[in-house]
Amino acid sequence: MTVSYQAPLRDMRFVIEEWLDAPRDWQRVDAWATLDAGTVEHVLGEAARFVSEQLAPLDGPGDLEGCRFVDGQVSTPRGFRETYRAFVEGGWPTLALAEDAGGQGLPQLLDAALQEMLAAANHAWLMSPGLTHGATACLYAHGSDALKRDYLPKIASGEWLTTMCLTEPQAGSDLGLIRTRAEVDTEADADSGGYRITGSKIFITGGEHDLTDNIVHLVLARLPDAPAGTRGLSLFLVPKWIARGGVCGHEGDRERNGVHCDGIEKKMGLKASPTCAMRFEHARGWLIGEPHRGLASMFVMMNAARLQVAMQGVGHAQFAWQRASAYATERLQMRAVSAPPGTHAPAPIAAHPAMRRILMDIRTTVEGARAIGYWIAHGLDIAAHDPDPDARARAEQMAALLTPVAKAFFTAHGFACASNALQVFGGYGYIHEYGIEQTVRDSRVSMLYEGTNEIQAIDLLVRKVIGDGGERLRMLLDTLVAEADRCTAGHDSTERGPSAAYADALVAKAHVLRSMCMHVDVLSTALARDSVADAELPYRVADDYLAMLGWLLLTFAWLRTARVAHREPAHEACARDAFYAGKRAAAAYFFDYRVAEFEHRRRLVEAGLRADLPCDAALSGASDVM
Amino acid sequence: MTVSYQAPLRDMRFVIEEWLDAPRDWQRVDAWATLDAGTVEHVLGEAARFVSEQLAPLDGPGDLEGCRFVDGQVSTPRGFRETYRAFVEGGWPTLALAEDAGGQGLPQLLDAALQEMLAAANHAWLMSPGLTHGATACLYAHGSDALKRDYLPKIASGEWLTTMCLTEPQAGSDLGLIRTRAEVDTEADADSGGYRITGSKIFITGGEHDLTDNIVHLVLARLPDAPAGTRGLSLFLVPKWIARGGVCGHEGDRERNGVHCDGIEKKMGLKASPTCAMRFEHARGWLIGEPHRGLASMFVMMNAARLQVAMQGVGHAQFAWQRASAYATERLQMRAVSAPPGTHAPAPIAAHPAMRRILMDIRTTVEGARAIGYWIAHGLDIAAHDPDPDARARAEQMAALLTPVAKAFFTAHGFACASNALQVFGGYGYIHEYGIEQTVRDSRVSMLYEGTNEIQAIDLLVRKVIGDGGERLRMLLDTLVAEADRCTAGHDSTERGPSAAYADALVAKAHVLRSMCMHVDVLSTALARDSVADAELPYRVADDYLAMLGWLLLTFAWLRTARVAHREPAHEACARDAFYAGKRAAAAYFFDYRVAEFEHRRRLVEAGLRADLPCDAALSGASDVM
Repeated sequence: MTVSYQAPLRDMRFVIEEWLDAPRDWQRVDAWATLDAGTVEHVLGEAARFVSEQLAPLDGPGDLEGCRFVDGQVSTPRGFRETYRAFVEGGWPTLALAEDAGGQGLPQLLDAALQEMLAAANHAWLMSPGLTHGATACLYAHGSDALKRDYLPKIASGEWLTTMCLTEPQAGSDLGLIRTRAEVDTEADADSGGYRITGSKIFITGGEHDLTDNIVHLVLARLPDAPAGTRGLSLFLVPKWIARGGVCGHEGDRERNGVHCDGIEKKMGLKASPTCAMRFEHARGWLIGEPHRGLASMFVMMNAARLQVAMQGVGHAQFAWQRASAYATERLQMRAVSAPPGTHAPAPIAAHPAMRRILMDIRTTVEGARAIGYWIAHGLDIAAHDPDPDARARAEQMAALLTPVAKAFFTAHGFACASNALQVFGGYGYIHEYGIEQTVRDSRVSMLYEGTNEIQAIDLLVRKVIGDGGERLRMLLDTLVAEADRCTAGHDSTERGPSAAYADALVAKAHVLRSMCMHVDVLSTALARDSVADAELPYRVADDYLAMLGWLLLTFAWLRTARVAHREPAHEACARDAFYAGKRAAAAYFFDYRVAEFEHRRRLVEAGLRADLPCDAALSGASDVM
Repeated sequence: MTVSYQAPLRDMRFVIEEWLDAPRDWQRVDAWATLDAGTVEHVLGEAARFVSEQLAPLDGPGDLEGCRFVDGQVSTPRGFRETYRAFVEGGWPTLALAEDAGGQGLPQLLDAALQEMLAAANHAWLMSPGLTHGATACLYAHGSDALKRDYLPKIASGEWLTTMCLTEPQAGSDLGLIRTRAEVDTEADADSGGYRITGSKIFITGGEHDLTDNIVHLVLARLPDAPAGTRGLSLFLVPKWIARGGVCGHEGDRERNGVHCDGIEKKMGLKASPTCAMRFEHARGWLIGEPHRGLASMFVMMNAARLQVAMQGVGHAQFAWQRASAYATERLQMRAVSAPPGTHAPAPIAAHPAMRRILMDIRTTVEGARAIGYWIAHGLDIAAHDPDPDARARAEQMAALLTPVAKAFFTAHGFACASNALQVFGGYGYIHEYGIEQTVRDSRVSMLYEGTNEIQAIDLLVRKVIGDGGERLRMLLDTLVAEADRCTAGHDSTERGPSAAYADALVAKAHVLRSMCMHVDVLSTALARDSVADAELPYRVADDYLAMLGWLLLTFAWLRTARVAHREPAHEACARDAFYAGKRAAAAYFFDYRVAEFEHRRRLVEAGLRADLPCDAALSGASDVM
């Protein structure tokens, strides 16, 4: 029994239209004044049709077929090329791109929903176009006019795909160790600004493939006079084929650049996505942005990518839920413990409480995470477009704070939900045919790339919380507490407040985090390098601190969901609407069973504040074989 | 960088000789009076040599090569057949088999260590011989004299491999739904007791392969007059080849039985182990045990298998630790946060606190679980051999209580530790070459087979705890509290007590569980079918209840470890022994960071005692696509 992914349009629209009330904010933006719920319905409906009809059917077969590497060429699985062409022709890559850059200028919020669908339906396929947004943003912000003229339109439209060439064998999380070098191209015209790039890169997604006619690599490398470390990295555009008539291009046949794929990796998942080892041999490249400021240019890509990766976690959790709940409804095993005496007929396994616990855990995770993920995406829209400069600034600060939380927390739960969903299938879960084991394998990568989840936690605590003395965190807590106040006060007469206990639970958590802000001083001291303080302190609590914040955000998501779902129904039909009843039941489950997770992470943070870590014991003892 | 598995002999001997002091108990058994630490060293040393030299090198290649299925025949990966022959010739299958059954009669405890090594070194390879113990025990207990004569010696020695044929497409956890039928073989001699078996079975490990000349299937099927449900199942021995001169055997060429393999499954992991769809077509079989009592006979196999599966979890966690700690020592990325100002050189990633948290979590899990797993195995030895009948009875009760906990808790953590270890590798963790992703995939199955972990939890709470009114649980708690008393009293003058706080932590947990025994009445009422009580109550808390008990057991393991490791060293050299220092540091980490896990599970159990579960909401809402 295989379940095919169906986009959860009802819940997506609930979040966008009711939970966020995004159309109201859109009215404040001139260009979006015509957008409304009808727009949401149309765009998401078309996206859902594309992913369910074209992408989802290739997911399982693509995993089995994988990519082939022969003589430097990479073939993607059957159907991938055609589907990619349809994706480009449908205009999906430019959905949220500014109109003056050739895009459709729609909100990022709708693109976040699209990204969630793409990841759920076929994560491996998504990997290739996954960098289009970031590369477009990077080139738009930092590229020369010539590069923008020759490359930007084809990159933005998806006609050419891009890569991000950072990692080298010795340089993973630590990009300062990059060795690839760039030298001024003495053979080129003096005014072309050309360079020659030489070095090896690994783990390059889509470094080589058969989806597009050209592949444009964005490569971090060192100029001859570069300082050591990350402040000596420059960013270069290095195309596989040098554009005809383009920058330094030839008028005649287009020129094959010195960029070679030496092989593809055997991976745990994403088997239909080629992960390439790349070799740049005296390859022609052009500088993007300032010399030695490559990392700053690259971070434009990485930040955009982090929210996309967060939405992958939501997509995986969603698909895991669909697979498991469908199986739990159809599979009959054992009598229900709640069945009347004398019942012998086997019940759907959803009747067994252990299975419902798993399903409700997944459901409350995925729906809560969706609300928060869309909230962040909507915040990016406000940050970019709101007429009020204060609102823009606040939204930008919030997005900076929340992005690492979403990336790490959602992807960890995308994988955990997939593994928990697998358990619902019993032995069938281990079999490829049922699909869920692929979700487990594919979802695992999102915890690793675009900065491991541990790197996200350091970014959150050290840079985003301690870095501004807790200012952004307090701004967030104020927002959340305002929601709680709204629930307890019930000042909106069209709303029935949910149990005040829900709001109290959120306020109590916010209070814990607020009082932890007082720890910021302690943590800051620990970070001062010339002090004798416990320098490891923030680093050993960062992961649990991020998880605390993640659970706080889910608490907020379910509190507001409960408020919206408890609204006085407009008419009788609504009152019987199973959707809202389901939301209310799920909120009750969240506040009954899942609020303990925050408390657990708090205890772990407190343990880290009290106790330091052994150094040697971590690396001896258990592996002693003598 | 690939790490090859090395058996953790130092820790294994620590648990057997110091933590358990098993040789002292062996003295009470006549047949084992000559066993001592030298025996342990010799047996485990030879086992370690076999697994590291012969099995471990086939693990990664076997995963890539997989099994091949052609025309009903299955080929295992290169080297598997030769290694299996060496395993049989080395006498490893009969290590703990009674001498009068042709075995070596050594303690189960040593076999538990062997099983841990085999699973860690090559889980897929282990799958084929994994049922030898259980099949031997089953046939020994329930087989007719003729079956014992013709099959037992070859099964026990490993010359022929066995399968356990339970699952059918519609009958997984619910064996009552089995349809395979057995009829008296009217063509056979009247006194042969033969039957004809017809039906389909799935998920049959080693249903067909090229490792041995014959394969003996133990098949659950229904006789014509069988009652419905599990009380109508009978167990049959159905060989692939009918033994020459054996039961109903032919004098001439041996006879191929009507047993056919229709295919092998594509799985998440264990790719080198064939999981077969089997078809029995009028196949000749012989009854094992009484008609309709097949499940009881089969449970002899399943109980033996559950502790083996628990040890797989320990093996996976151990190997995950070895892989991750080796990588963390060698891989240099970023300066250490604790490095002096001005340091720029990248440090081993073990210097980064987030990595040490992961490593210490794994270490404290695997070493604690090993102690408990060996404790259970040692208990089985006492239950079988102690001269004191009371000691035997007590040990048997404890093993019955602890086996489901070990199976579910250790396998869940085997997988979790593997996934956490993968995180230490960053992007490399996702690449097959580094090995850890295979550990993640292979370890996942242990949570599913031999009864899913959710089934174990029901077995624990409903049958083992509520089933005897909490008697066994109280026996366990008394044992644990006695250990705590020993630590706080420090009455053994050769020992320095560890921090009394460790002991207090354990006593507090035991107290919580003891007071929860009072809930047993509530739970029992819930189980009474004619009551109007909340029948789901025990079932919705069972998983967290099992986890509570699991954490309590790890607390006990680390408490005793701390006591042993704090002993006055016999001479100066010991005082500097890094092994004991590592144990003390790991115990401190456990009591600093990990005791919160028990508390967390307690809160979840309490949530389940308070709040019931939604029925419909689990299955609607999130998947609504309209």
